[in-house]
Amino acid sequence: MRRILLIGIGTGDPAFVTMQAVTAINAADAFFVFDKGDDKAELIAVRQAILDRYATRKDVSLIAIGNPPRETNARYLEGVDAWHEARAVLLREAFHRHVPADGCGAFLVWGDPAIYDSTLRVVTRALAGMDDAPEIEIVPGISSIQILAARHRIGLNDIGEPILVTTGRQLREQGMPAPGVSVVVMLDGELACRELLGQGLTIYWGAALGGPDERLIAGALDDVIGDIVEARAKLRKQYGWVMDTYLLRRPAEPKT
Amino acid sequence: MRRILLIGIGTGDPAFVTMQAVTAINAADAFFVFDKGDDKAELIAVRQAILDRYATRKDVSLIAIGNPPRETNARYLEGVDAWHEARAVLLREAFHRHVPADGCGAFLVWGDPAIYDSTLRVVTRALAGMDDAPEIEIVPGISSIQILAARHRIGLNDIGEPILVTTGRQLREQGMPAPGVSVVVMLDGELACRELLGQGLTIYWGAALGGPDERLIAGALDDVIGDIVEARAKLRKQYGWVMDTYLLRRPAEPKT
Repeated sequence: MRRILLIGIGTGDPAFVTMQAVTAINAADAFFVFDKGDDKAELIAVRQAILDRYATRKDVSLIAIGNPPRETNARYLEGVDAWHEARAVLLREAFHRHVPADGCGAFLVWGDPAIYDSTLRVVTRALAGMDDAPEIEIVPGISSIQILAARHRIGLNDIGEPILVTTGRQLREQGMPAPGVSVVVMLDGELACRELLGQGLTIYWGAALGGPDERLIAGALDDVIGDIVEARAKLRKQYGWVMDTYLLRRPAEPKT
Repeated sequence: MRRILLIGIGTGDPAFVTMQAVTAINAADAFFVFDKGDDKAELIAVRQAILDRYATRKDVSLIAIGNPPRETNARYLEGVDAWHEARAVLLREAFHRHVPADGCGAFLVWGDPAIYDSTLRVVTRALAGMDDAPEIEIVPGISSIQILAARHRIGLNDIGEPILVTTGRQLREQGMPAPGVSVVVMLDGELACRELLGQGLTIYWGAALGGPDERLIAGALDDVIGDIVEARAKLRKQYGWVMDTYLLRRPAEPKT
């Protein structure tokens, strides 16, 4: 039976790979990666570096699947939907071409396949259109959220309190949740926390987490926002893009 | 300089250990574990199994730190506070006795040290009382949340929507959040979702995740709650305790 593995590889540092991921890497006949354009060529290079380091078979190939054009002007969910469908078609073709019967295809997924990653959705959609659909297996990976917390030496939650993992878009629309809730923001191209000054919030920010140019900044949001804007701009200039995440907390409430 | 490492080891399966964790394991002179009583002796055994598998030095010791009595009748936060302080004192003593100057002590932390785990808090508190406080380093680990998602082959979030990671206690007090938000419940000894029947919720439940007796149940909450109660009772009978976690989602809203 054909299988398709979604293997979480952590972010930035090949040392975040788990033993289970190494085993999975060595079970695969072909690796696929969604090409997101030149500006993210580093993400492809990181996958190749992981194969070079952990794959014992040296004949496995890393196959880039083209990036369908994205209708940025379409309504958000419709745009996402059409783009996923176009990628599913491309994946189905690539899978048929490169994975033998009884073989195993794999994706090396940045971070964890279950956290704000579309690979599973695209793969599921692609399989839905196949006569001999392979079985999906998922190998969890260390997410940037976890690296953020580790580097800042903090817990993600306050004692017994919730953690809200959300996006910049949602944070802008919803604002901060109830006191006690720690907020982790991902996929925030616009640094939505800039609109939350003057509330006494604390921020733990990290960019390029796990990589050689990792940047960490923590403190009172009002005090450090300038440093964060500057650090982000510098990374964006260096790479052409920046991946960052941050945790926000309200000031400690008197516990009653 | 003395160091203390908090090493996330995933849950249930030694294959969740990362390469970085293996390196950290082999840097440590002594391992500490908080003894939580006989009923969790398996948690200690799992740590020993990880050392047997990954530690190249075979002379390292796994030192149990006694479990101070917990005032279960005290108000929740005060009780947690006194218990952490008592454990900090015990850790300080054990660290001085077992870790040489310039040496390295370590904790193998179930799951991820940043997610509903008190080790970091206790260690930070213990260090605050030391003249020659070691430096803390944290190695992220795969959390049960991630294993839950991997096993059910789901993403934790709906497209572009938040994930609320919370406790059984909080879920009971706050109920379900706004539509779109996926809710992950941890530390829920009483299966608080039993109070949320009749709302059309979907549940993805898992217990003993990563281990040989892993149980998974998914479906409409109203339909599968009986199976979950039964599976939990069976595991509790077998082990004397049960560790489970689950994801709840509201029915899909028409996207507008």
